[in-house]
Amino acid sequence: MASFFNRFTSYSNSSSNSNSNSHAPSAPSPPSAPETQGQEHSHATASPYHSEQNQPQPYGFNYGGVSSYGSYGFPPGTSPEVIRSFQMVDRDRSGFIDENELQQALSSGYQRFSLRTVRLLIFLFRNPIDSSRMGPNEFTALWNCLGQWRGMFERYDRDRSGRIDALEMRDALYGLGYAVPSSVLQLLISLYDDRSGQQVEFNFDSFVECGMIVKGLTEKFKEKDRNYTGSATLTYEDFMSTILPFLVSYS
Amino acid sequence: MASFFNRFTSYSNSSSNSNSNSHAPSAPSPPSAPETQGQEHSHATASPYHSEQNQPQPYGFNYGGVSSYGSYGFPPGTSPEVIRSFQMVDRDRSGFIDENELQQALSSGYQRFSLRTVRLLIFLFRNPIDSSRMGPNEFTALWNCLGQWRGMFERYDRDRSGRIDALEMRDALYGLGYAVPSSVLQLLISLYDDRSGQQVEFNFDSFVECGMIVKGLTEKFKEKDRNYTGSATLTYEDFMSTILPFLVSYS
Repeated sequence: MASFFNRFTSYSNSSSNSNSNSHAPSAPSPPSAPETQGQEHSHATASPYHSEQNQPQPYGFNYGGVSSYGSYGFPPGTSPEVIRSFQMVDRDRSGFIDENELQQALSSGYQRFSLRTVRLLIFLFRNPIDSSRMGPNEFTALWNCLGQWRGMFERYDRDRSGRIDALEMRDALYGLGYAVPSSVLQLLISLYDDRSGQQVEFNFDSFVECGMIVKGLTEKFKEKDRNYTGSATLTYEDFMSTILPFLVSYS
Repeated sequence: MASFFNRFTSYSNSSSNSNSNSHAPSAPSPPSAPETQGQEHSHATASPYHSEQNQPQPYGFNYGGVSSYGSYGFPPGTSPEVIRSFQMVDRDRSGFIDENELQQALSSGYQRFSLRTVRLLIFLFRNPIDSSRMGPNEFTALWNCLGQWRGMFERYDRDRSGRIDALEMRDALYGLGYAVPSSVLQLLISLYDDRSGQQVEFNFDSFVECGMIVKGLTEKFKEKDRNYTGSATLTYEDFMSTILPFLVSYS
């Protein structure tokens, strides 16, 4: 049990935006992630206005017009693809996108996620001002994280079927820094068992949902286990308050 | 915080079937519950074959043919209404009903519950042999519990609109033995906020779902806080294993 944090990512909730480009340093580089870790645009730290972007920027200071991680701007070095995806759906230029818009924006770079997964993503990458919507910072952090997860998913989806089995899911989670005990893994898998007798498989959507549940709950537990002992003491209020938000995304 | 158990029900998960007729002694009697605590049929302990039932019993020993709490029989004193509802949907006489059948069976005595709520009920009142289906014992325990909850709901639904507001929901939960801290209550309410700006209201379905989440999580916490201190120490594995089943019902 004491080893469950052994390959923990250093990535924490996106509410601490200052490290949104530096998550999971211990995880291997994804083989084919669309945009991860900002490698491709690392030179852009000197170009916070995203000059790589071909199209004119119709937005004001809210978009790319900040020299560091502003509350509403994109972080320096953000890929134009991320900005384009965000702008595509933020038609009222509010600087925030809601769950339906996020579902649409992510489709351009990844795939269409279920609304269940989208709600979980909004919750886990929530911004401190409006927890029901996502700003550029949170969107960028999410996009980069999904790039890394996509890479890990594709590493195990060897036949390119778009699906991985339960053992591959375990290995992929391990690759992302989460060593899930086997009893917990069994429970996780049972969430996706349709009782048809068929072996449980995960597409990218359910892999992300499953992994984000693990990520979110593990980070919550870590907050109560600062010394990484593998045990934590919670009050009843802590316990309930920790769990309930994870039911939010399923309403 | 130390007072959150102050009006705790003594009722525990139905897997301990031996007390399925003796739950929540501290809770007030429901004013108009369909069938609760077996009061109406308390004489039936001398008549375990449910002779009150007018129609012939097409079932073998599985139904009412046991003199005490058999594994698959109804407990002595079970209301004929409960047995009829169960039999109505258990057409193959297997002694078990699945989630769709449970949804249908409960409709006869209460109302049609969402599949979300039904899955949560099956999980919380699960039988030890097959956790995806419900036997007579579990069904009876659930039916009686819902009777009590219906009574509490109706006590607060003064205008008989079929809905109660958030404060009434809090009071109803308190009446059932759950003193939910206000921060937790806020989170609970947010689960049902459709962000339309309208005040959150609960129909009996969402009241039961909401209350059963509280009941289930609180009982899990109690298992780790045997001395009722208001705090509990959990390992990572405990923590994850406690929470994950609550996501089951939402798949």
